[in-house]
Amino acid sequence: MTGHNKGGILARTECCVVGVDFGTLSARAVVVRIADGTELGSAAFDYPHAVMDTVLASSGAPLPPRWALQDATDYTAALRETVPRAVAAAKINPAEVIGIATDFTACTVLPVTADGTPLSAVPELVDRPHAYVKLWRHHAAQPQADRINTIAAERGERWLPRYGGLISSEWEFAKGLQVLEEDLEIYERMDHWVEAADWIVWQLTGCYVRNACTAGYKGILQNGEYPSRDFLGALNPAFAGFAEQKVAHEIGQLGFAAGTLTTEAASWTGLPEGIAVAVGNVDAHVTAPAAKAVGAGQMVAIMGTSTCHVMSADRLAEIPGMCGVVDGGIVPGLYGYEAGQSGVGDIFAWYVANQVPERYFTLAAQAGTSIHQYLTDLSDVKPVGSHGLLALDWHSGNRSVLVNHELSGLILGSTLATPAEDGYRALLEATAYGTRTIVEAFVESGVPVIEFIAAGGLIKNEALMQIYSDVLNMPVSVLTSEQGPALGSAIHAAVAAGAYPDIRTAAEAMGRVERAAYTPRPAATAVYNRLYAEYLILHDYFGRHGNDVMRRLKDVQHEVRAPQVVLPGVGHTTVAPDRGMPA
Amino acid sequence: MTGHNKGGILARTECCVVGVDFGTLSARAVVVRIADGTELGSAAFDYPHAVMDTVLASSGAPLPPRWALQDATDYTAALRETVPRAVAAAKINPAEVIGIATDFTACTVLPVTADGTPLSAVPELVDRPHAYVKLWRHHAAQPQADRINTIAAERGERWLPRYGGLISSEWEFAKGLQVLEEDLEIYERMDHWVEAADWIVWQLTGCYVRNACTAGYKGILQNGEYPSRDFLGALNPAFAGFAEQKVAHEIGQLGFAAGTLTTEAASWTGLPEGIAVAVGNVDAHVTAPAAKAVGAGQMVAIMGTSTCHVMSADRLAEIPGMCGVVDGGIVPGLYGYEAGQSGVGDIFAWYVANQVPERYFTLAAQAGTSIHQYLTDLSDVKPVGSHGLLALDWHSGNRSVLVNHELSGLILGSTLATPAEDGYRALLEATAYGTRTIVEAFVESGVPVIEFIAAGGLIKNEALMQIYSDVLNMPVSVLTSEQGPALGSAIHAAVAAGAYPDIRTAAEAMGRVERAAYTPRPAATAVYNRLYAEYLILHDYFGRHGNDVMRRLKDVQHEVRAPQVVLPGVGHTTVAPDRGMPA
Repeated sequence: MTGHNKGGILARTECCVVGVDFGTLSARAVVVRIADGTELGSAAFDYPHAVMDTVLASSGAPLPPRWALQDATDYTAALRETVPRAVAAAKINPAEVIGIATDFTACTVLPVTADGTPLSAVPELVDRPHAYVKLWRHHAAQPQADRINTIAAERGERWLPRYGGLISSEWEFAKGLQVLEEDLEIYERMDHWVEAADWIVWQLTGCYVRNACTAGYKGILQNGEYPSRDFLGALNPAFAGFAEQKVAHEIGQLGFAAGTLTTEAASWTGLPEGIAVAVGNVDAHVTAPAAKAVGAGQMVAIMGTSTCHVMSADRLAEIPGMCGVVDGGIVPGLYGYEAGQSGVGDIFAWYVANQVPERYFTLAAQAGTSIHQYLTDLSDVKPVGSHGLLALDWHSGNRSVLVNHELSGLILGSTLATPAEDGYRALLEATAYGTRTIVEAFVESGVPVIEFIAAGGLIKNEALMQIYSDVLNMPVSVLTSEQGPALGSAIHAAVAAGAYPDIRTAAEAMGRVERAAYTPRPAATAVYNRLYAEYLILHDYFGRHGNDVMRRLKDVQHEVRAPQVVLPGVGHTTVAPDRGMPA
Repeated sequence: MTGHNKGGILARTECCVVGVDFGTLSARAVVVRIADGTELGSAAFDYPHAVMDTVLASSGAPLPPRWALQDATDYTAALRETVPRAVAAAKINPAEVIGIATDFTACTVLPVTADGTPLSAVPELVDRPHAYVKLWRHHAAQPQADRINTIAAERGERWLPRYGGLISSEWEFAKGLQVLEEDLEIYERMDHWVEAADWIVWQLTGCYVRNACTAGYKGILQNGEYPSRDFLGALNPAFAGFAEQKVAHEIGQLGFAAGTLTTEAASWTGLPEGIAVAVGNVDAHVTAPAAKAVGAGQMVAIMGTSTCHVMSADRLAEIPGMCGVVDGGIVPGLYGYEAGQSGVGDIFAWYVANQVPERYFTLAAQAGTSIHQYLTDLSDVKPVGSHGLLALDWHSGNRSVLVNHELSGLILGSTLATPAEDGYRALLEATAYGTRTIVEAFVESGVPVIEFIAAGGLIKNEALMQIYSDVLNMPVSVLTSEQGPALGSAIHAAVAAGAYPDIRTAAEAMGRVERAAYTPRPAATAVYNRLYAEYLILHDYFGRHGNDVMRRLKDVQHEVRAPQVVLPGVGHTTVAPDRGMPA
């Protein structure tokens, strides 16, 4: 790993960088001009194996419920496919490119040998499911996560409050423990349990550097320490050495170079050998510089199927229900906070797919607009508060601030005169109230939120943005790039290449934000303050053990559902992908 | 009025009687054999003026919101149209008919002159809306009802608890006060404020007899007394004489003859002059004998858009949230209780019209079944409790036992995997829980419910009946006639004609019930007991002032809604009549 080039060649800002965003189903490369962040060209690539959540592609063998695997060869294929095409689309000379950076979904993690070879590429292991990448949404390690949480709480592990009291089944330790307990040979043969965010950088540089972001948020690295041998041994005696043997490695700070482009990677990408390759990063966190939001108190909400909130601050606090706080988790020198709403766009998509009559689709088509926009527009002409509804946005549980995945959705106030668009509106508003609980949790913990910046697919819905501004009683800024993460990566590449002295300076030059694109309407805010007070009463009643009916209903549900029951046809339809909102 | 013929000519049971049921939009006559209740023929007739709820037919003048008028000439037209055709369809000699009885919606009420002429038939008054019949669902007298309730509560009027503490805007006094306050000339010119149930009998017999049922339930007649002059004068000084001047009249007990068929009415109906005409009755209450349910503790639930519960008992109790208790209100000699659920079938219809995607309609059509049956079937194959949902059936408020029309609907427990049929099922179940609260209110007040008999359009839904049996943990009997009210009227006609000594004997011979058609399934009941316990917690929390959020949301709604706002198109759609369930 090379150091951070603080004496960077600032004259080279006429050059370009490449950012590559590795999403759940595809990767996208963007070529960006260093001087001003102009996006010159881009290219996308769908992973050939997509997400393996029903069968393993190599053998056709079925996978158990809640599994979600990927094939790491898709990621290198994506580099070969997207970067040259993006450079061609940008109509630049590849020699003008001075750096590359990547961001990834997380926690997406894979077992590799000492040289970085995925175990799934080892011939005798290709049919072993545990040899493959476990995608972020692989949820089959829940029993392991439950054990981690129970034992950590019993032992009073100091790191637990840094994660809102709950380690996710998605993260490195739960997934690693699942490998140990379900396929010991894979566990023993892996030399590193590596984030895909770092593995792809390893492929570009030949060096394994763990980025500070995922190491902190997903790898439970706090104050330079992982969970102790003692704790890990309490989970499973054979797991005692997991952190030191499989996880621990050199840490790279965000915005630094992890190394330089290898000859092989240069041949894949068509970029010059030896250019800077930035330390890996996470798609949500890397969006902050794209939105010029790397200062203390600038909260970025990446709003898609779910919402991820990232914000830097100059002080450490244990904010109730946070996903995590990591020193340097977004930019070096500040504490990076992450919070989340587990259901947002996917709740709207669920409603559209399951609770909206055909006449709305017909009228939306006649109006030449999407069903989401049509429902939004229908409800937006009515005065705020006139529908008489109040919803809880917990269809996927509540991540922040309650940290309870057994909560569920609620809609209250329906009458025989309630049309479908009113229910849709109530759900839009409920997600705004959910965001307000998060903002207030920060503020009440002594961590001010001075700006709210929206990013992600949902920012297309202008009425939704206005609702957020009215409910938060704050201006809402928006990230104006449609390639937020890739632009953020490009900014990291520029810093790693020395074109700017630090991420903040680069973000200021290259980021894209419309400040205060929406401002609160006082009359609407006055009504929303009353409705939010009602939301809070229900939030605390159902979410803070005033009435645990939601958990009890799930208990009944689990008891009466025979696991083998398969229901025919329409009964199983949940979210129709072709009607989903961009996420 | 002739007396009750206790020495009736029992040999005449080979003869026939005619029952005529006057519904909201149409009337139906049925010819029934006295011996065994066989329905020999029937005929129906749609009222030419239907319900006037937007414009007055005579003038085309618009009517204010919440008005609902009818034209009394439609009722006599219905007699002329239906009775001769029913007799013809029955292929009997009209001379075999020895009695006729009628039942009506209530409280449906009209102003008439001393000879029974409706003021709407007085030439100079035909364009005056207040001269017309006010249908039961005319709700524009709510301000008057509110005043009645407030002042009655303040004064501690003894009759108020007999009505669950709330006099409805639908009833005689609220509507009468509205006439006084909005059209004084009509009020002054009317000699009688008469129930349509009694007016039609007046047309048949030439005699005005007030039936004990509506006089008690709708006319606040308790222990032989109406509300006092003092009370009425407190409502409005000009209203002090309302009861004695406009309302009070000879009372006829149910099952007795009000008189005999006049020459003119014989010419309308084609029936023999001089046959017995029974005292008038209400469609819900007259259904009890049709279901052989006139004994103490036999509760009949007439389940349609809403549900009306009627039950006789041998003791007087003030049951919380009852609609009313009237001595002889169902059969002479017993106390008749009435309770109600303000929304049942109309909630299901609302859901189908506003919350169900097109694919369900398509699949229902392919399966050759109704959308209601299709949703029911889809949900009925799943184990009880497996949907994880809980609903409150308050979309039209709650009549019994909470008596609060500001309550509203709720559904709790939705996830991204919740399909539309699960929400439908949760609403079916919620209405069963609502019925259980009523049954338990009776039992806890010392009035046992020993049998539960379902009648009305919803009994076609067998899964719904099974849910009721499981939730109530009681057998559910069903009325097997599709003409419940008309059959009940025919039973009254037979008694009035002296063919049977009393209603109970006649009902036993002529009524139609399948006893214990549904019996509780212990496993389902065990789950429903747990879910009902959860329902009760929410019921009391939202319904008994644990959290008055529903009222506060309505307050916000009323404040922000400018009265002149009219919204375009689909936004106003509520219940699509062509997809409604039979009621």
